[in-house]
Amino acid sequence: MSERALQVGVLGAGNWGTTLAQLVATKGHATQLWCRDPEQRHAINEQHTSEVSVPGLVLSGKVHAEAELAPVVAGSDLLLMAIPSQAFREVCRQLATVVPPDLPVVHCTKGFENDSNLRMSEILVRETCVRQFGVLSGPNIATEIARGKPAGTVVATRFPRIARLVRRALASSQLRIFDSDDLRGVELCGALKNVVAIAAGMANEMQAGDNAKAFLITRGMTEMMQLAFALGAQPATAAGLAGIGDLMATCASPYSRNHRVGAALARGIPLASVLHELGMVAEGVYAARSACALARAGNLRVPLFEHIERVLHEDLPAAKAVAALMELPTGRDVPRFGGQQLLQ
Amino acid sequence: MSERALQVGVLGAGNWGTTLAQLVATKGHATQLWCRDPEQRHAINEQHTSEVSVPGLVLSGKVHAEAELAPVVAGSDLLLMAIPSQAFREVCRQLATVVPPDLPVVHCTKGFENDSNLRMSEILVRETCVRQFGVLSGPNIATEIARGKPAGTVVATRFPRIARLVRRALASSQLRIFDSDDLRGVELCGALKNVVAIAAGMANEMQAGDNAKAFLITRGMTEMMQLAFALGAQPATAAGLAGIGDLMATCASPYSRNHRVGAALARGIPLASVLHELGMVAEGVYAARSACALARAGNLRVPLFEHIERVLHEDLPAAKAVAALMELPTGRDVPRFGGQQLLQ
Repeated sequence: MSERALQVGVLGAGNWGTTLAQLVATKGHATQLWCRDPEQRHAINEQHTSEVSVPGLVLSGKVHAEAELAPVVAGSDLLLMAIPSQAFREVCRQLATVVPPDLPVVHCTKGFENDSNLRMSEILVRETCVRQFGVLSGPNIATEIARGKPAGTVVATRFPRIARLVRRALASSQLRIFDSDDLRGVELCGALKNVVAIAAGMANEMQAGDNAKAFLITRGMTEMMQLAFALGAQPATAAGLAGIGDLMATCASPYSRNHRVGAALARGIPLASVLHELGMVAEGVYAARSACALARAGNLRVPLFEHIERVLHEDLPAAKAVAALMELPTGRDVPRFGGQQLLQ
Repeated sequence: MSERALQVGVLGAGNWGTTLAQLVATKGHATQLWCRDPEQRHAINEQHTSEVSVPGLVLSGKVHAEAELAPVVAGSDLLLMAIPSQAFREVCRQLATVVPPDLPVVHCTKGFENDSNLRMSEILVRETCVRQFGVLSGPNIATEIARGKPAGTVVATRFPRIARLVRRALASSQLRIFDSDDLRGVELCGALKNVVAIAAGMANEMQAGDNAKAFLITRGMTEMMQLAFALGAQPATAAGLAGIGDLMATCASPYSRNHRVGAALARGIPLASVLHELGMVAEGVYAARSACALARAGNLRVPLFEHIERVLHEDLPAAKAVAALMELPTGRDVPRFGGQQLLQ
């Protein structure tokens, strides 16, 4: 590459953050990975491994773990945020004290904040001076990417400069990066698909069959499109990598946490035990509640989301939910779009 | 049911035709199944089985196999056609001699005719006096439905009377029937998705990973939407049961013929042997050629369809095709719709 190497900061040393740092470093860029855990930091810097986040991965020497935010941000050309949705605001508050207003920030988080039901970019704008931002989302199971398998992803932003920077930092024959101008739609699809994946995991575990699983996923996709459209997204975004693409990978992969949550619930395991056993965040568990709240605010019926929410938080047995969803009243196969947006 | 029982004719005693006949009969309707094979006919009428088409199924006594078309058509309230695409015209020619012009006909065939690249409803209208017609399509793997597993499907027609008849004949808590007014879109999605399923089967066999498989399916979906739109379909139809729903089931199910064709090709087995071993029609093998021809006529690029066509008919190795598709130039994640239609 004839362009100069970048300096890229990555916030979040979990599964996806660590994998992203590795991809950036592999392209020859200096990569600062914010990592609060001293043991993990030591392993990254001294042994070039991070067994807690990506078992088996040998990290590039260009990935440097940092305890503090300031040195990660200082001098960076681009900041990638891979922070769980419920910790996102707190990290933004810390970031606010050190981030310059012209630093491009791209988040890679698929979720809503509890209670506020805000998207991550909304929190970023409310808590920091950052105004040039984007989102990276798509069928990107980190475990596969860390093993060198190929994938496609979407960067959605209103800033062409950010799309170019993300390409320079990350694009390769292994990670194909596509463009979108629908930031809102990409964020909403990324958050909502996790709920559909929980439903698919339930249907799978119950051996409902591939027809029934495809039926449920399609109904979920329809509700996703309607809700995202009502919230100001372009409906076509749901047909892209961040929508149906991500849904497809999430519903197929044994690595998907949300899918595993659905399967465990179908076996009758209580949610608390499922999450404890998982040991990681399953974003769909939070997103179900936000999706239902947002739909209610817009007078929109989202039966699949409502049933999953009831399984997660109101003890509705998974088998009853799947049976009820299979017997919902029939009607138009796909909704009409093009009318008025319900919410903004 | 307080409504009188219908008389329903089913043309085609294969996997899907036999399953449909069973569903109709189970609802209490008299069902005439056109079956040209004397042994199969004898088994259906005397032993209530049809091991060659649906192994293990015990047929309702209300399914009656008929050797001739005339008695199947005479007195029928509704005709269902489950005939392979390449035999569809010949059956229409026979049907033309016995069918009354006001008989509602619903076909259940997912393919194009070779060379003419026509949809099944186009052939029906050209060869017969039938003018009230529809299509039934969706994630409906026959083997699962015959085993009593639930599914959803779409009936697309311009005639509300036909949608009502199909519901009376087939709808149940096991088979949920949704509506569409986009006959063209439902036919196109049903035919095109089989080509994408071949690509998914290849990626699966090559262990390209769930990210890559989802990427390829999404690119295929995008090309499907663009081509269907160019041919006069509504793009949203691809997001429904007949589009992404069917694609999802086809790409997941071990029973899918097209998926199996893709997997066998990836193992290096020549197409002729694959089809011989399968012993059944894999519609995607024909649909790939038609899709490419239709796209060429509209100056539309469909790289995924083109690569699969080359694997099928020009000896391009499957591994090379998948590698090339993973490295196609990037760009917009989803195409813009709403401009002019390219073809009609």
